[in-house]
Amino acid sequence: MKLEVVTIGTELLLGQIIDTNAAELGRALAGAGVEVVRRSSVADRPDAIRAAVAEALDRTGFVITTGGLGPTRDDMTKKEVAALFNKPLRLNADVLRALEERFRRLGRAMPAVNRTQAEVPDGATVLPNPRGTAPGLWVEDRGRVVVMLPGVPSEMRGLLADEVLPRLAQRSSGAGLVVRSRTVRTTGVAESALAERVGPIEDEIAPLTLAYLPSTDGVELRVTAWGLAADDAERRLAAAMAQLRERAGADGYGEDGTDLAAVVLALLRARNARLVVAESCTGGLVSGRITAVPGASDVFIGGVVAYDNVVKSGTLGVRPELLDKHGAVSEEVVRAMAEGMQRQFAVDAALAITGIAGPTGGTAEKPVGTVWLAARYGAEVRALKRIFPGDRGEIRARAAQAALDLLRRLIAGAP
Amino acid sequence: MKLEVVTIGTELLLGQIIDTNAAELGRALAGAGVEVVRRSSVADRPDAIRAAVAEALDRTGFVITTGGLGPTRDDMTKKEVAALFNKPLRLNADVLRALEERFRRLGRAMPAVNRTQAEVPDGATVLPNPRGTAPGLWVEDRGRVVVMLPGVPSEMRGLLADEVLPRLAQRSSGAGLVVRSRTVRTTGVAESALAERVGPIEDEIAPLTLAYLPSTDGVELRVTAWGLAADDAERRLAAAMAQLRERAGADGYGEDGTDLAAVVLALLRARNARLVVAESCTGGLVSGRITAVPGASDVFIGGVVAYDNVVKSGTLGVRPELLDKHGAVSEEVVRAMAEGMQRQFAVDAALAITGIAGPTGGTAEKPVGTVWLAARYGAEVRALKRIFPGDRGEIRARAAQAALDLLRRLIAGAP
Repeated sequence: MKLEVVTIGTELLLGQIIDTNAAELGRALAGAGVEVVRRSSVADRPDAIRAAVAEALDRTGFVITTGGLGPTRDDMTKKEVAALFNKPLRLNADVLRALEERFRRLGRAMPAVNRTQAEVPDGATVLPNPRGTAPGLWVEDRGRVVVMLPGVPSEMRGLLADEVLPRLAQRSSGAGLVVRSRTVRTTGVAESALAERVGPIEDEIAPLTLAYLPSTDGVELRVTAWGLAADDAERRLAAAMAQLRERAGADGYGEDGTDLAAVVLALLRARNARLVVAESCTGGLVSGRITAVPGASDVFIGGVVAYDNVVKSGTLGVRPELLDKHGAVSEEVVRAMAEGMQRQFAVDAALAITGIAGPTGGTAEKPVGTVWLAARYGAEVRALKRIFPGDRGEIRARAAQAALDLLRRLIAGAP
Repeated sequence: MKLEVVTIGTELLLGQIIDTNAAELGRALAGAGVEVVRRSSVADRPDAIRAAVAEALDRTGFVITTGGLGPTRDDMTKKEVAALFNKPLRLNADVLRALEERFRRLGRAMPAVNRTQAEVPDGATVLPNPRGTAPGLWVEDRGRVVVMLPGVPSEMRGLLADEVLPRLAQRSSGAGLVVRSRTVRTTGVAESALAERVGPIEDEIAPLTLAYLPSTDGVELRVTAWGLAADDAERRLAAAMAQLRERAGADGYGEDGTDLAAVVLALLRARNARLVVAESCTGGLVSGRITAVPGASDVFIGGVVAYDNVVKSGTLGVRPELLDKHGAVSEEVVRAMAEGMQRQFAVDAALAITGIAGPTGGTAEKPVGTVWLAARYGAEVRALKRIFPGDRGEIRARAAQAALDLLRRLIAGAP
């Protein structure tokens, strides 16, 4: 099954928000065997919305839109889609009741502007949205379908899972062909070096395709099966993954959506070990990534953001003379940070990061991007210096990922 | 001036990466007075790329693409655009030399696959890319233009600023009409409540348009001037911003891209005050947001991620009987965390956060999403309980924003 996605909102074209809905929709639909063949974004303008939806309908007959269902004047998706299908908008009593009930529960009077959210195109199926005020709408006429979802990510996600995917599964159960992909995630290796190792398998895995996706977290290797029967796709993907895993070697840390922080937590959990983190230039990002993983609390004790040297020497016990002699960004200091942290909390594993994230603070000897990392596991220690490219945000993200990877390789005994 | 953007990459449609380039391009182009009228994303498939670029060219005559310029087989943008313009690809000696030179500097041999990156469509202008291996390409023929940029964000950004925007400025200098927008950022107030306060000015500010952009950080109010002379746009925007600012009141914390963490840092810097942070459920996010601001180090001393109670009682000095009697997520504990942190580092300002981010750990009395926040400034203290909607990530993001906002209002003396 194929469809197109149209995301609606001037803020998307002006770049004032990043279109995370588009990615979420793509993931969920691909997982359900639905191929998104094109995605378009247009501004909150009647003619632009109508043209984009009409063209997408002409190409695939099935369109999912996000955005433009809110209570304010810049929300006009419903009106344009109704016009495209030649259906009038009518006040829906059930939707109005649900809206009024929602405001009552929150103990507030319903603002008059919200009343327009109870209008639906004649004959449309209302998709209830318990997470917000705008219901989803499914409009279908002579084989052409437009599904309208709200733009607020949590509402879009809920409606997609509860209302849209089950209906899509029902429609596509006849064909049984799926689009599926899997990925091996690597870090600490360049795209072209990886391509030299992995490239030779491209012909062997056909008709599956291979793609390289570089980011600040490393390079992902993605294999995709297009329009195959589910069991054939699974078998071919499993075989391709085995080859990719082998060729990625120790640079591969996980598969599909696996986060490196979750991998490190699992390695520690299996060893009944607990972890502490001391960070300077990453300023909380490493702790943040670890605690983003549900259930982190059985492994992660806590962290110290040692931004000022007073915290490095006071809380972490780094001797001031080390700071004076070698500077805060040095092998000696990063080792002392990890050791101080591990000792203070009497735990098995510790990570420490200190560096220069920029834009200022670099010198000829220690340019912006210079980062020292240390990992301790029991009495074993590894320290590593890296010079990362990019701006402040990229340097911090790369440093956080490299720190987690250093600990992963240490625990796993990998080079 | 109007154009369309086509971002290319199967990973975009599968949702495996979020299209940050699209947002960056939108921001930069809007800033230069260029209106992006539509954005499309297609997979790494020859026919899909060619159709999307051709249709966009038909509509506006000017297209910027990102992605598909890498050295691997899934990179095919250049070939398709060359075919669309009926131009052969030729090896460009200058590009090849630059590529070989780049690999020499990194002390590595150039992999054979990179050689294809030196092929350019006949007659195209090469846009040098010092940040990576794929140069940008500007193809122009009989008034139709396609500009191809690489998909790696830092390379795209660099080429856009150095090579594309100056050329666009030259082309559009005749018309002198701009698309400009400005925003007032609010937090702690619902979209519909804000709309009741702000809505009445919509007619007054016409032809400028007003939009509401809700996110986990709050609601942004955006006014946009479309196709006006620069000085007229500026004058109208300034007048509209004054009205918005007044109507947003204490809920407005900044304008345009202003981050709340930067606002808090500026308030503290103006008072020569220093800040420490103790966080539990946000696990480093608040410190991370603060240290993402360049120059944070003159205000921010450091933070403690007190994930385990051992850190709350040990490092922060929260009395164990408070934890036993009231639980870690309680007003008493969050107040003690802020006070312990402020005392230990002898600073003026402290923030503390403790809560239940889920997905597990909630109870009937304290459901998932329950968060206690405390802010101290000198001897003044505010504590606040909130119950945030959303998943673990959203709850953490909302809690971090609410914590920063609590301190902002305390320092500024706002309600």
